Amino acid sequence: MRIAVDAMGGDLAPAEIVAGVLAAAARWTDTEFILVGDQDAIRTQFGHQPQRVNIAVHHAPDVIGMEDDPARAVRRKPNSSLVQACRLVAEGSAEAIFSAGNTGAAAAAALFTIGRLDGVQRPAIAVVLPARSESGKVIVCDAGANVDCKPEWLAQFATMGAMYAEGIEGITNPRVGLLNIGEETCKGNALSKAAHALLENAGHNWVGNVEAKAVMRGIADVITCDGFDGNLVLKVAESTAEYTMSMLKDAFGSSLMAKLGGLLARSSLRGLKRKVDYTEYGGAVLLGIKGLVIIGHGCSPANAVVAALGRARTGLQNGLVSRMADHFAAIQAA
Amino acid sequence: MRIAVDAMGGDLAPAEIVAGVLAAAARWTDTEFILVGDQDAIRTQFGHQPQRVNIAVHHAPDVIGMEDDPARAVRRKPNSSLVQACRLVAEGSAEAIFSAGNTGAAAAAALFTIGRLDGVQRPAIAVVLPARSESGKVIVCDAGANVDCKPEWLAQFATMGAMYAEGIEGITNPRVGLLNIGEETCKGNALSKAAHALLENAGHNWVGNVEAKAVMRGIADVITCDGFDGNLVLKVAESTAEYTMSMLKDAFGSSLMAKLGGLLARSSLRGLKRKVDYTEYGGAVLLGIKGLVIIGHGCSPANAVVAALGRARTGLQNGLVSRMADHFAAIQAA
Repeated sequence: MRIAVDAMGGDLAPAEIVAGVLAAAARWTDTEFILVGDQDAIRTQFGHQPQRVNIAVHHAPDVIGMEDDPARAVRRKPNSSLVQACRLVAEGSAEAIFSAGNTGAAAAAALFTIGRLDGVQRPAIAVVLPARSESGKVIVCDAGANVDCKPEWLAQFATMGAMYAEGIEGITNPRVGLLNIGEETCKGNALSKAAHALLENAGHNWVGNVEAKAVMRGIADVITCDGFDGNLVLKVAESTAEYTMSMLKDAFGSSLMAKLGGLLARSSLRGLKRKVDYTEYGGAVLLGIKGLVIIGHGCSPANAVVAALGRARTGLQNGLVSRMADHFAAIQAA
Repeated sequence: MRIAVDAMGGDLAPAEIVAGVLAAAARWTDTEFILVGDQDAIRTQFGHQPQRVNIAVHHAPDVIGMEDDPARAVRRKPNSSLVQACRLVAEGSAEAIFSAGNTGAAAAAALFTIGRLDGVQRPAIAVVLPARSESGKVIVCDAGANVDCKPEWLAQFATMGAMYAEGIEGITNPRVGLLNIGEETCKGNALSKAAHALLENAGHNWVGNVEAKAVMRGIADVITCDGFDGNLVLKVAESTAEYTMSMLKDAFGSSLMAKLGGLLARSSLRGLKRKVDYTEYGGAVLLGIKGLVIIGHGCSPANAVVAALGRARTGLQNGLVSRMADHFAAIQAA
């Protein structure tokens, strides 16, 4: 198994990316990691550590920034670390790619360079959120790749999200739901009503509409939606968690008693912080591409990089992409 | 000033509604409160307290339940507490109505019974969320009345939301933004791009696109959006805050040290709970109607009822509805 890693993508690149790869390479010796980016910048990060046999460096002089316009940057910077990493997958030199850079650019580079699976109408981004379910997580798909959707696309997002849940997140027979503003079948806008009609007979372990307030309650393992709405849900969840934690920090600083209380409860509170900390959840996945595409949070520290690479490895072990290819090819043939 | 109150609406009705009205009537003796609903059920709640002169009871035998289909229930139950309360406003016997019942039914009853202001294309629901701004709040409009919107409607929602921010929330020259999935002008779906073009020249204190993650950061006082998206944002914020607080509770129960810490920090943590507690924020407002329509959370306890009635009173004092009527009439005339 070979995973191409965009060493220059993200706010903490290349230091945290390389540190994550070093840790991952030590843990998973059956996997080869190809660090793509400025070779000097990468090698500087190795420091005095001997280079592991399962780490390779592929030089790419350019970098696509977090603020660059995705499609334009991908077209204009063929020698960027991101495009070059995708090229390794397109050529068959790697089976997966990880980038913590510009999400839009990563999606565009993967789509243009590696290409869409036959039968997939639109690739979609799947993201994992914490939830009060047995698995402790819920997958939202599409989380932002497609802003104006057709009902048929949402049906495909559900299929891809469910295959991802089984193939990478280890959730057997995942429960699939549709993001909506009410539980009843009659609720929603034109898009969600039409998607509901398609999904209820699609052969999933179908739980119906899922209200936004129930997303984290764990009543579904996979929730399909328009990328505009998925992005809203994701960002609001992230910011509310941040807001509540910052209020908590203020509360513990508000009096001497509170400070002392915070000190006593410190290790438990650290556990809480970890539960609501998105960097622990690894990264998003772009589904529907002829290769496994993992996109990390822009500020991914080394531990998040390791988590994301671990998920890429699981996906490769379980043959997620070839299963997805077979599924959509069979539907097209029928 | 006369406020009609749906005494039977909400999960805690009539007990908490009547208790809230009793407290409000004691605090604001210049305002008359008309409790609408089953007169026996209402009078039972008075207990041994002498009835205040500024409280009246208007009998209405029927009740619209939380699960009833809004439009159908409003048509079929003309003698429900909700429809009768709206009728008092339509007849001029009250200037405002408060209900903590079925939100959809309250909106439908207000629209059918009281009617839309001339020039308003679609009434919209404004909801207040906590935020890290000077005022400590942010208004989301539309929060769920309209699921499939035109760009022109979003422009009107912004105007109504801004007038509400000034007239009830006391925010001078409110900063207006558009909910979107990116800050840049080019970002968004077809609806948000078209709405952006209308809004940037609409004469507001315009701050542009506001990402979902920034809603609670307080960079705008009023955020306009499609009711489907507004509802998503609201529900996710609510549930994430709940989720984080429940995790916090778990964390404080996880060890003896943590329990002791929680005990010491108790009063500070109560303050935090209040900050993220939506019942403290009073209620939503249906804007664009020929009367002031305040819709409470379904599980509004007495303190939330008092808060909502206080906001209704402020809106009446500031002549919010007549200002809005003048504004849209002037636009239509032009």
